Amino acid sequence: MKTNKSLLLGILLLQIPATGQEPVAQSVIKKHNLMPVPAVLRFLPGSLNIDSSFNVAVDGFSDDRLKSAIDRPCRRLANQVGFEINRKVSTDSATATLVIKCQGAGKPVPAVDETESYWLEVTTRQAVLNAPTAVGVIRGLETFLQLLDRDQTGYFVPAVSIQDKPRFPWRGLLVDVARHFEPPEVMKRTLDGMAAVKLNVLHWHLTDDQGFRVECRRYPDLAKQGSDGLYYTQDQIRDVIAYARDRGIRVVPEFDMPGHATSWLVSHPELASAPGPYQIERGMGIFLPAFDPTREDLYKLLDGFFAEMALLFPDEYMHIGGDENEGKQWDQNTKIQEFMKQKGIENNHALQAYFNQRLFKILKKHGKRMMGWDEILTPELPKDVVIQSWRGAQSLAQAAKLGYDGILSSGYYIDLMYPASKHYLVDPLAAGSDLDEQQAAHILGGEATMWGEWVNPENIDSRIWPRTAAIAERFWSQASINDVNDMYRRLEVVSRELEDLGLGHERNVDVILRRISRTSDTAPLRTLVDLVEPVKEYNRGRLHPQTTLAPLTRLVDAARPDSQAARHLEGLVDGLLSDAPRFELYRDHLRTVFASWRDLDPRLDRMIEASPALQDAGPLAQDLEEMGRIGLEALSFITSGNGLPQGWKQSKLDFLAKAGKPRAEVEFAVIPAVRELVVAASSRADLNGTAPEEWHKRVKANASGKTSASNSSSSP
Amino acid sequence: MKTNKSLLLGILLLQIPATGQEPVAQSVIKKHNLMPVPAVLRFLPGSLNIDSSFNVAVDGFSDDRLKSAIDRPCRRLANQVGFEINRKVSTDSATATLVIKCQGAGKPVPAVDETESYWLEVTTRQAVLNAPTAVGVIRGLETFLQLLDRDQTGYFVPAVSIQDKPRFPWRGLLVDVARHFEPPEVMKRTLDGMAAVKLNVLHWHLTDDQGFRVECRRYPDLAKQGSDGLYYTQDQIRDVIAYARDRGIRVVPEFDMPGHATSWLVSHPELASAPGPYQIERGMGIFLPAFDPTREDLYKLLDGFFAEMALLFPDEYMHIGGDENEGKQWDQNTKIQEFMKQKGIENNHALQAYFNQRLFKILKKHGKRMMGWDEILTPELPKDVVIQSWRGAQSLAQAAKLGYDGILSSGYYIDLMYPASKHYLVDPLAAGSDLDEQQAAHILGGEATMWGEWVNPENIDSRIWPRTAAIAERFWSQASINDVNDMYRRLEVVSRELEDLGLGHERNVDVILRRISRTSDTAPLRTLVDLVEPVKEYNRGRLHPQTTLAPLTRLVDAARPDSQAARHLEGLVDGLLSDAPRFELYRDHLRTVFASWRDLDPRLDRMIEASPALQDAGPLAQDLEEMGRIGLEALSFITSGNGLPQGWKQSKLDFLAKAGKPRAEVEFAVIPAVRELVVAASSRADLNGTAPEEWHKRVKANASGKTSASNSSSSP
Repeated sequence: MKTNKSLLLGILLLQIPATGQEPVAQSVIKKHNLMPVPAVLRFLPGSLNIDSSFNVAVDGFSDDRLKSAIDRPCRRLANQVGFEINRKVSTDSATATLVIKCQGAGKPVPAVDETESYWLEVTTRQAVLNAPTAVGVIRGLETFLQLLDRDQTGYFVPAVSIQDKPRFPWRGLLVDVARHFEPPEVMKRTLDGMAAVKLNVLHWHLTDDQGFRVECRRYPDLAKQGSDGLYYTQDQIRDVIAYARDRGIRVVPEFDMPGHATSWLVSHPELASAPGPYQIERGMGIFLPAFDPTREDLYKLLDGFFAEMALLFPDEYMHIGGDENEGKQWDQNTKIQEFMKQKGIENNHALQAYFNQRLFKILKKHGKRMMGWDEILTPELPKDVVIQSWRGAQSLAQAAKLGYDGILSSGYYIDLMYPASKHYLVDPLAAGSDLDEQQAAHILGGEATMWGEWVNPENIDSRIWPRTAAIAERFWSQASINDVNDMYRRLEVVSRELEDLGLGHERNVDVILRRISRTSDTAPLRTLVDLVEPVKEYNRGRLHPQTTLAPLTRLVDAARPDSQAARHLEGLVDGLLSDAPRFELYRDHLRTVFASWRDLDPRLDRMIEASPALQDAGPLAQDLEEMGRIGLEALSFITSGNGLPQGWKQSKLDFLAKAGKPRAEVEFAVIPAVRELVVAASSRADLNGTAPEEWHKRVKANASGKTSASNSSSSP
Repeated sequence: MKTNKSLLLGILLLQIPATGQEPVAQSVIKKHNLMPVPAVLRFLPGSLNIDSSFNVAVDGFSDDRLKSAIDRPCRRLANQVGFEINRKVSTDSATATLVIKCQGAGKPVPAVDETESYWLEVTTRQAVLNAPTAVGVIRGLETFLQLLDRDQTGYFVPAVSIQDKPRFPWRGLLVDVARHFEPPEVMKRTLDGMAAVKLNVLHWHLTDDQGFRVECRRYPDLAKQGSDGLYYTQDQIRDVIAYARDRGIRVVPEFDMPGHATSWLVSHPELASAPGPYQIERGMGIFLPAFDPTREDLYKLLDGFFAEMALLFPDEYMHIGGDENEGKQWDQNTKIQEFMKQKGIENNHALQAYFNQRLFKILKKHGKRMMGWDEILTPELPKDVVIQSWRGAQSLAQAAKLGYDGILSSGYYIDLMYPASKHYLVDPLAAGSDLDEQQAAHILGGEATMWGEWVNPENIDSRIWPRTAAIAERFWSQASINDVNDMYRRLEVVSRELEDLGLGHERNVDVILRRISRTSDTAPLRTLVDLVEPVKEYNRGRLHPQTTLAPLTRLVDAARPDSQAARHLEGLVDGLLSDAPRFELYRDHLRTVFASWRDLDPRLDRMIEASPALQDAGPLAQDLEEMGRIGLEALSFITSGNGLPQGWKQSKLDFLAKAGKPRAEVEFAVIPAVRELVVAASSRADLNGTAPEEWHKRVKANASGKTSASNSSSSP
């Protein structure tokens, strides 16, 4: 069970002292909000005041990118501290508060072998940031901002010595803008968030069955007919790439083929393996249309297309997808079957390999390295192709053994709505892997994937953030940084920092609730929404099928994938069951929580009644009231130690099993915590009459696996 | 005292039935959420269902603008109802749910004499929107969206017959992007909000002492050196203008001169009336630098500048500011004094008139009509100049009598932080004006002015919206539409509609609070912030001077200028004092409110203690607790009718006077309501022993002015 003691104390007492309020001796002990955690981090006594005299000096290399990379954090710092920050950068490193020592520009185009390391030394007098490249400075300044702390008297940065560099060179986020278009400003704020947690690759999934999102001047109908007018002009693409480069982020475009290509076929049906006409796909899933790899005019068009894209996208890599092509159109096309016979191509897999080899040559000609999903891996494939694994670490390790570079995405599918903790513990290079050092070096990193079936500009931020910050830590920090509780403690702070960059993961929840409730005061709905999560995996589409043209503004769009309230509740239950001296404190807090469920604001019922969009939320509200009653009963039994009514435990567990089922495409995230209380109440009842202290001893012993409270073993 | 009975019932009972739930007979009586109120509006029995079969047909003229003007509301409708709306527009007007009959495109460039009228007939079978121009369709579709209602079973539009046209042809919003830059996306969402309430002029204040915000290719240093890099490229300007045109909105640029021109002088100090060098002004107020109107090279530069701007901005009008030039640089420049003597120019006012006449010719040459603030009005000025009055309706009427067109801005200075009600009751053409019909026709309308000293992209929406919607109604609707209570009832609905367009006036409040409190749960702070308003007039700068480079992220930036909570409280107090049958209902609600103040969440104190940004909010919290106690005491005296302790009234009034003083650049908006209760308690005490009913009679009589309860007159 996930718990978070420090956070919990925060809720209970709201008195966690800021670092600066602690005596020096304590503040040297690590307690920070850095995410990702730096490679080497040592706190020193004292701190550096941040007041209106703050100023920056550059000692050494400087260029336009570095200048703006310094100016942006200064503006963000001003926004945090609330007073004007001098943004004139001097060269007087003797008196400056923050000195930047940069040795060079770094790569003209951000590259996978970019040096991103930095050294940050903060004393009570001055902070000095050293880095071999401007990108290192960019990374280090994010750390500096995350160090900002405050007490009653003002703001400060603790004295610290940091030597930092990433564990993996490829730390990406895939954003699928094909299923739903995301305008340039969404991409920009996403890049801001990525830079804040030191991600360095935007994998831009630009074409798929549901949309062709990039202007191609040679074949303008591709976007015009394949996108409902929702595509990026080349100016916009260049603008986003420049924005990314300013933040030390690469942009790798993906053009998915030969499957996932319906949107190409709207304007170019002749490229398909079955007769057209084709329309933009509005459904979600895997579809049959695929390029016909036997046609020479296909390669001619792709040559022209990639010639243009190779100039537009400066990154060394170009992603050609290659996933989920089932080849059914190929099976039914006699011309294709004939071609395969002639060339001795045994099956569809081999035909796709043939296609990939043609594609490889085209990309090579235009100076690009090819990249694709697991499926493209065939023996004939040249070794400088990069494999992106959605199948798993094993598939990736296999590729590495064959000598292919690869990145892991399996385990980082944030569209599946799992909590951050689940992704956080997935490692691209798991401990105990049997790869030798050379093979391990082929594992370049990983990418979180924001597939676009259920996201739009309003809800995408709450799907990406803050969870992706935890994944970013996995890619940057040492493998040993894996304390889930501490991750969540820091994630709540980072989440607010991300909001300050303009991300809407918090603020847009209420916007959706105000819209569907048509009221200004969403507090009654918020109680419910904060306790549920969107259904996991691909269940949303099964429970409530929609096309890509339908709006995304249901209760589930307001719900978030990693309920903070549920996590806090689990912390309270865990405290109640394990922290005997503070039993009453935890109990009283849990009582307040459960009472607030039982006595749900009566306005909620009326909101639900009045809103067609909330009709299916009614049963959720009823179940929450019942869970409040169950929680209160369990607390009462646990407190008194009195016997339980016959069948109480089973009937409550049955109820919870039922209440755990999805409704309105959401599910309660608090079921495990309530279930644990019910079970605890039952085991307590077996000891009726004994004092809570005795019971606690048994619970503790039970938890450590030595004995079982329900066995009534009498060992202390 | 402002009160709002319907709203109040909303708070008390949350049971206002939606229109559709009422029996037909009632729904015919007006009760709608339209803003601005149409010229002629008649509800009919029944309603038109809006379900997934909804579709649109165009019968008659169509063009690209019309098509996108239909597509946008369809997307917004889908977002409201939560299901997919068919966006393929047919020509089958027999079966369509909504038929658009448009007679023509309207002006190629939106103009002041554009026809904006429309007729909307909704029956239980179909809605038909008739309009002479595409702009009329745009206006009518906003009305159609505002008619959307719902009940448990689904969405509908009430049957209605509307004939609508604006009262004034010039209905504008000035946005000052010189003091603080607002990026294009802020301008776009502002235009969305403007279109939603039928405003039709964006007055873009592009240059001032603090910034030169537009690219000029002939004189590129103007923007480069005058803006810190924060200016619009010409592509961005064109993009915003096209966005405005799509919404039937004109864009009138303002280049303020000869004063308010420091930012020009950074790159062109030779144009000034005193020796340079000049720097971008960082302060707020009126500054001395002014163009030297005696220099021929000034006119040469302005000729080149306006030649380019005339092409960039297609609107017929060009605003040259002309305000607040004190001419002190002129007084001290012997060359200028010499010039005046030579030319027989008597004073600075005449010198500015000379400058304006030169300017007038330049604008005329480039096909533009000149427009400026009151100060430009001089006898020599040609009659086709438009006067914008910041001085008042009288100054405007005077101009109209002289034959000048004019618009009113005095009374609509939304930067002064007054409530919507104050602006709402200002009329560009006040009843009882002594203008004859021809003179009155010179009053073209008005403009709300969002001066930019204290706004940035994060807080500007809460400064413009929702108050500007009330001003928009003043400009569009008949003068007789002036019920403040009903305006506020509708404004709360419109505010949510505006949010759905992407405006941040609601959502960004919590963003600022989370930032300054560094916590996720802002509820404790929100209680306080919702009860205060930013200080009025120009007091913020006096209380806490800042430069334009300083961040805007203080408590005052989260506070909003028209406290809804205070208005609701006033409604409750008014109900208590006037609605005898429901005395106890009101009293119990007021008790809950006052108790929540007295027992402020203890987390608030800790937040305030921990945050340097909240240090000056401590006294506010203490005073709020005391006001809670005062309110509870007053309620108790009013209920019991017992005598008051000696000096109670005066000591409480003294306290309230003190508590009403600004702190942290905000002031309590609830003082009048609490004061009223204190006074009521005192008058009730004079009648001690009498039953509440008797007292109520006296209060009522008192309110109607017939007698005074404190006189103890015994008339019933």
